[in-house]
Amino acid sequence: MTTSAHAPASLLVTGTIGIDTVETPLSRADRVLGGSAAYFAAAASRLGPVRMVGVVGEDWPAHHRTILEGLEGVDLRGLETRAGGKTFAWGGKYLDNMNERETLFTELGVVADAPPTVPAVFADSRYLFLGNTHPEVQIGLLEQVPNRTLVVADTMDLWINIAHDSLVRLLSKIDGIVLNDSEAMQLTGVRNAVTAGRRILGYGPTFCVVKKGEHGAVLVHRDGVAVVPAFPAEEDMVIDPTGAGDTFAGGFMAHIARSGSIDLETLQSALAWGTVMASFTISSFSLDAVSRASAEDLAKRYRRFAEAARV
Amino acid sequence: MTTSAHAPASLLVTGTIGIDTVETPLSRADRVLGGSAAYFAAAASRLGPVRMVGVVGEDWPAHHRTILEGLEGVDLRGLETRAGGKTFAWGGKYLDNMNERETLFTELGVVADAPPTVPAVFADSRYLFLGNTHPEVQIGLLEQVPNRTLVVADTMDLWINIAHDSLVRLLSKIDGIVLNDSEAMQLTGVRNAVTAGRRILGYGPTFCVVKKGEHGAVLVHRDGVAVVPAFPAEEDMVIDPTGAGDTFAGGFMAHIARSGSIDLETLQSALAWGTVMASFTISSFSLDAVSRASAEDLAKRYRRFAEAARV
Repeated sequence: MTTSAHAPASLLVTGTIGIDTVETPLSRADRVLGGSAAYFAAAASRLGPVRMVGVVGEDWPAHHRTILEGLEGVDLRGLETRAGGKTFAWGGKYLDNMNERETLFTELGVVADAPPTVPAVFADSRYLFLGNTHPEVQIGLLEQVPNRTLVVADTMDLWINIAHDSLVRLLSKIDGIVLNDSEAMQLTGVRNAVTAGRRILGYGPTFCVVKKGEHGAVLVHRDGVAVVPAFPAEEDMVIDPTGAGDTFAGGFMAHIARSGSIDLETLQSALAWGTVMASFTISSFSLDAVSRASAEDLAKRYRRFAEAARV
Repeated sequence: MTTSAHAPASLLVTGTIGIDTVETPLSRADRVLGGSAAYFAAAASRLGPVRMVGVVGEDWPAHHRTILEGLEGVDLRGLETRAGGKTFAWGGKYLDNMNERETLFTELGVVADAPPTVPAVFADSRYLFLGNTHPEVQIGLLEQVPNRTLVVADTMDLWINIAHDSLVRLLSKIDGIVLNDSEAMQLTGVRNAVTAGRRILGYGPTFCVVKKGEHGAVLVHRDGVAVVPAFPAEEDMVIDPTGAGDTFAGGFMAHIARSGSIDLETLQSALAWGTVMASFTISSFSLDAVSRASAEDLAKRYRRFAEAARV
């Protein structure tokens, strides 16, 4: 899998655009821009162009659109506003340790209706990230991208429970899967992250990223295993963990797309870029920190992380 | 802090020599050689000479002595056999996930009597590791080593609870402390490992290693922060986690002793050596795997880890 250095990376993300209400022990944010596709795109756009596919309702706040339109390199031509519909909304509350959260409400809105479609102008995309949704919807989306060279998907406990066979079918069609350690255990019955990841490769993917939150991630690849710690963030740096996983995926995929390779070494740098993006995301509500950091801030954080994690 | 390349590293460990009985979901080991000093020495001796100070009772099995005597580079002149006493004995049972364990019994034996003393022949030691015991005992031991240039101590929840002031006094006299994440939180009231480590530096040490078990470790140093993942062990590699922390400390200290430096970069390699030693320890009962691995096995495991953890 190689691309010409001058070919557009043509990275496409499908996922939610949401209205988030977040409570933390020290603060709160009401109806701010969130959703997997929004977080992913904010992070990915820091490394290269990204195309976004998702749906919002008529109630979508105009200033949320303004924020997305302000992100350089994000192509919004796959953003559909559905007449009469309501935008996906989520409310959550972080407990004292900032690592556990309660969901206060989830209003699916337009996300519960027909899935989004990939517009014709995006059909030539090569790198595809399928944000978490029903695996049958994910399969439908990837089939709309015939020139795909690399597909990575996210999933969640719900689909492992109620759509296991569809998820297995999805796994046979994709190159990589990103999931939490608890989800990897749920899918395989194995608690050990490396062994669970290895079992998941048995379903078809070339690699599996098992995310461990504040403990980093493990990458199990057909050619070997890699481990990456989380960024060693001080307590007062953590304002709101929402979106950390989606921006991790955004940094990870955008680095792969611009590198044009999925060898183990490229994926290791991609994990580090994902980690750097997540380290910004947790330091603000919504997309603020990851989208406002200067290019120099990003490069500096990457160097700081590489030094801290040097073996 | 530098040493001539030809000066003996003169690393000294004080701690327990124990008789361990371990149950795991798949297997068990009865009355095998264990204890913090034994595990530490087995690992440290793979990188350089190590002097051991500890006490055993009259009941100490002769074949345990034979095992320790067979470890090249371990100086046993600080091993005291106490007449009429019983050797420290511990029994533990690992639960299904191998990360939680129950203590079935602890028989302190000679460890409950007078602490060991550092023999005159060891008084010129430069590098000192104080295995977990009452902090007043640790202070008494370090004062018997007047030429010490570096002292690192281990501790546990019990002393944080019942000997807090002594522990604080110990911290003002040592260069480094090694403790678990739960203990760091207990000591500081801070859950975040980096911030907790930073608070602990406020008591005096130059560095603090917060161990996170299967999630690796965080090093907080006056000059910066380092993070190291655990070795990405597959499930079937984990036979018995007992001693992982002590061999981690052994590899860590022995690398420091042979390097003659505690700058951040040296400590990072020391963390990696600790990780490598622990990865062997968990793959057998007692000291078997860490002491039997060939020098080539060790070097190979180090390279494999450095590659897996490359950022």
